[in-house]
Amino acid sequence: MAVAHPQILAFDVFGTVVDWHGSIAREMAARYPQVDGDAFALAWRKGYQPAMDLVRQGQLGWTRMDALHRRILDGILPQFGLGDMPEAERADLNRVWHRLAPWPDAVAGLQRLKSRFVITPLSNGNIALLTHMAKNAGLPWDCVLSAEVFQAYKPDPRAYLGVADVFGVEAASVMLVAAHHSDLAAARQCGLQTAYVERPLEYGANQPKDVTPQPDNTYHCRDLLDLADQLGC
Amino acid sequence: MAVAHPQILAFDVFGTVVDWHGSIAREMAARYPQVDGDAFALAWRKGYQPAMDLVRQGQLGWTRMDALHRRILDGILPQFGLGDMPEAERADLNRVWHRLAPWPDAVAGLQRLKSRFVITPLSNGNIALLTHMAKNAGLPWDCVLSAEVFQAYKPDPRAYLGVADVFGVEAASVMLVAAHHSDLAAARQCGLQTAYVERPLEYGANQPKDVTPQPDNTYHCRDLLDLADQLGC
Repeated sequence: MAVAHPQILAFDVFGTVVDWHGSIAREMAARYPQVDGDAFALAWRKGYQPAMDLVRQGQLGWTRMDALHRRILDGILPQFGLGDMPEAERADLNRVWHRLAPWPDAVAGLQRLKSRFVITPLSNGNIALLTHMAKNAGLPWDCVLSAEVFQAYKPDPRAYLGVADVFGVEAASVMLVAAHHSDLAAARQCGLQTAYVERPLEYGANQPKDVTPQPDNTYHCRDLLDLADQLGC
Repeated sequence: MAVAHPQILAFDVFGTVVDWHGSIAREMAARYPQVDGDAFALAWRKGYQPAMDLVRQGQLGWTRMDALHRRILDGILPQFGLGDMPEAERADLNRVWHRLAPWPDAVAGLQRLKSRFVITPLSNGNIALLTHMAKNAGLPWDCVLSAEVFQAYKPDPRAYLGVADVFGVEAASVMLVAAHHSDLAAARQCGLQTAYVERPLEYGANQPKDVTPQPDNTYHCRDLLDLADQLGC
């Protein structure tokens, strides 16, 4: 049975649309040549799920990703010999997440997909982070949805179902596009269509990621240009 | 004392960025030539504040603008001899608000303002309405904020202060751009900067609007190109 096309494409962002590892490693190398930028990027990202767990489990009230990124940053700086970094510099470094570079296919792929679908982030990043990132990187979103809008971090069903609710459509009319099978599995449980994007170098060239297709996804694509091809854009 | 430039420009949309009266009157004239399109547009808009008042006063729970527009539409159709309009046609007509045309200066003005500021709607229209409108009209928003995000219809302070909160800035770093002095006055009470935009034909050529400057606004502009001039974009 042919699956009807979705109307709304909702994108995971960190790792799927933008290269957090490469962007952070490059900025660290430029600013602090004495630090291992690869290790720093991985350490920062390693705190990501545990920080959101504090919110998911109610130990922290609703807290934006900018503030969670900052908590993690403050925790890892001493491990990299940067424990005496002044406040203004910490605040500026924390905004590296607002400056992440897109994967090379992302802007052109989104432009093509936008010609036929509503395209929106559905990221755990906060609205300001996603807005500044889009402005900086030229991501042509039609709107900016975020865990912040629904006050619920993925994989909370409220995030996925919130997109369908906002647009007044059934869950199956929304497709989550992501480079992470766990995110896609949670979306599928809510009735969304799913597209997996291969990002083998998400964790850097030293840690290539298994990008084997999983049959439950509606689409499996090499990158966003490939997704546009498969969707006839 | 020179006022520092804002960082975020938040725009009222209906009447300020898009021409609701002309768009609705034109669509009515094309679809239902027997109906007075000018009167129909005015009648539909006349129900706008009373419908939001039901939500503001708690008689209705949070209800999106699409649903409020539909309530008003259902109420006025019989007065215009269209009481037997079928459901699908009502639903499609209700989406005329998603198809409103921009004022002639709006797209070019927003493009210029976007080069220097974050530009976002701050409209009582819902996210889907504003997103479809932007896609259709080519409005280059950086993100889409709405009363829906804050679950509070302007002039509720939560809407104005919500923009500053999302971006982590002081209220004075946000400027509301609107064609309505009451909206601007409420924003100013919250500490926002304000820019008044002249839209003398908002209610159609038969009801020209008084666009006399009021001294309390930070800026007074003829249109969005004039605002871009004044802000040095």
